[in-house]
Amino acid sequence: MKIPKGDLDLLAVGETLVDLISEEEVESLREAYTFRKYQGGSPANIAVNVAKLGGTSAVVSKTGIGNFGQFLKAELQRAGVITDYMVMDHLVHTTVIFISRTEGTPDFEAFRAGDYKLEPTEVNEEAVERAKVIHASTFALSREPCRKAVEKAFQLAQEGAKIISLDPNYSRQIWPNYREAKSVLERMLGYATITKPSLDDAGRIFGPGREPETYVEWFHEMGPPIVVLTMGADGILLSEEGETTYIPAHQVDVVDATGAGDSFWAGLLTALLDGNSLERCVLFAREIVERKLTTVGPLPDAIDRDNVYARLDAASGEVDG
Amino acid sequence: MKIPKGDLDLLAVGETLVDLISEEEVESLREAYTFRKYQGGSPANIAVNVAKLGGTSAVVSKTGIGNFGQFLKAELQRAGVITDYMVMDHLVHTTVIFISRTEGTPDFEAFRAGDYKLEPTEVNEEAVERAKVIHASTFALSREPCRKAVEKAFQLAQEGAKIISLDPNYSRQIWPNYREAKSVLERMLGYATITKPSLDDAGRIFGPGREPETYVEWFHEMGPPIVVLTMGADGILLSEEGETTYIPAHQVDVVDATGAGDSFWAGLLTALLDGNSLERCVLFAREIVERKLTTVGPLPDAIDRDNVYARLDAASGEVDG
Repeated sequence: MKIPKGDLDLLAVGETLVDLISEEEVESLREAYTFRKYQGGSPANIAVNVAKLGGTSAVVSKTGIGNFGQFLKAELQRAGVITDYMVMDHLVHTTVIFISRTEGTPDFEAFRAGDYKLEPTEVNEEAVERAKVIHASTFALSREPCRKAVEKAFQLAQEGAKIISLDPNYSRQIWPNYREAKSVLERMLGYATITKPSLDDAGRIFGPGREPETYVEWFHEMGPPIVVLTMGADGILLSEEGETTYIPAHQVDVVDATGAGDSFWAGLLTALLDGNSLERCVLFAREIVERKLTTVGPLPDAIDRDNVYARLDAASGEVDG
Repeated sequence: MKIPKGDLDLLAVGETLVDLISEEEVESLREAYTFRKYQGGSPANIAVNVAKLGGTSAVVSKTGIGNFGQFLKAELQRAGVITDYMVMDHLVHTTVIFISRTEGTPDFEAFRAGDYKLEPTEVNEEAVERAKVIHASTFALSREPCRKAVEKAFQLAQEGAKIISLDPNYSRQIWPNYREAKSVLERMLGYATITKPSLDDAGRIFGPGREPETYVEWFHEMGPPIVVLTMGADGILLSEEGETTYIPAHQVDVVDATGAGDSFWAGLLTALLDGNSLERCVLFAREIVERKLTTVGPLPDAIDRDNVYARLDAASGEVDG
């Protein structure tokens, strides 16, 4: 793959928001009484993780100007993410999501506000021009005008021959109109160079219970030449130019799975920009996600990429030998 | 004053919402990281306090149907407040307010949602008919359609010769359009039988620095025949039928002033319905607010009214003797 020009590895378009995670470990938010604030939003988290891997990243997101917006900006800056293209609007509130802390599937309630009010005119053209990868999530596509803003970013990215990355992380709770979601996803995946569904994402979009290879085929039909299907402990299917490769998952002792998907994304895109083969990109991403899974809290800061590549080489040497 | 007929002492119209109060004691919300949820909203709090004083009360409020709405309903029921007239709407979120815990003036950020979406058609006529007092706050007047909903409740109350009570607790942060606020307040106070501004409220509505008597006069001009101006440690001015009486504050060791205003309101209205003179109502309310000020957390549960009246009589006996 030809790596686009730009001094910005990743431009993440879409939600930067406040996660309010319950201190109590509970199934339902009804049982939760205290909440702690964290910077959240999948695209923003991927930007943070890219920065942790030594890359340069920026976000295009809308927040309020109040304490939550200020908090998000400060957190992103602390992580080394460029915030010049954030839009802080005094007319909106910062989006917050209440989430239950649980080992199962978290209960959540999203108070959508600023995030979806991003206008196409607020997508800075210079930002897109500077970037190698433009990444967005399905969350950001679920409402207008943000959907149009993402589409504008993708159109500019297409004109500039950038890598376009779309996370098909569809959630019916966030986007109840399934028909609309499927048709918008189909159109937006038409712009995408790469997509990385999880098996759950695929089931939510196409219906559950199909063969992984079928899902991969269907994602390709929507547009992206590169499809990476993650299946948790069952490994990863990667597909490019008619060729499908299976990569098993390593057995690891999972201590905290929160943010695993965003760690995988950051690893995948970072390795792609380093000029690796897709298979090596997935191996790199698997390595990064394992560091996340075996750590409580976010992905560790300042991961040395060369070190990760050296480990990959050593492991492949072992296998070859 | 003629006490209206009804099996409901108080019908509180307006906001029932979730207060998310910081666990850390901080000036600014920016420094706050953890928040604890409480049932909030001034009219709802007054309804709770009336129930604690042995009265019957109900709220007319709109919330979402999610975990926060369920929480509020359960909390009100636990306090003995009738929730039959609450409107839980799956199309809205429950309003939440983030508040800093501080000994000074709290920093807050309101995420207005369900509360102001109360429609006039959602004000249950039977509820108004059942009530002796219809109470609302300025918060509820700050947005449509809730403003119209409150006005409808007041019109029905006027037709039914009910006591109409309006809290002129104007906040510029909640209602930035001051001109609009003043004109709406003027119209709505036109319905009111009784209003209880604090000196701060009066300053925010008419400009600061005037004599207390002037403020009282100006409130009367807007409509209410009864005006009770609370001035913190400087005492209380009460005014009815051209007669103004000054009641000093007792010196108490304040340990927690949160909710003092709503305790005063509940005491004032409860004593009014018991058929007391306005002066005795204010003395009763002062007694109730003192119990609040000297307690950490909300007003104590199950206050014996007879006991409070007996204390008032004993104190007045002491003075007379």
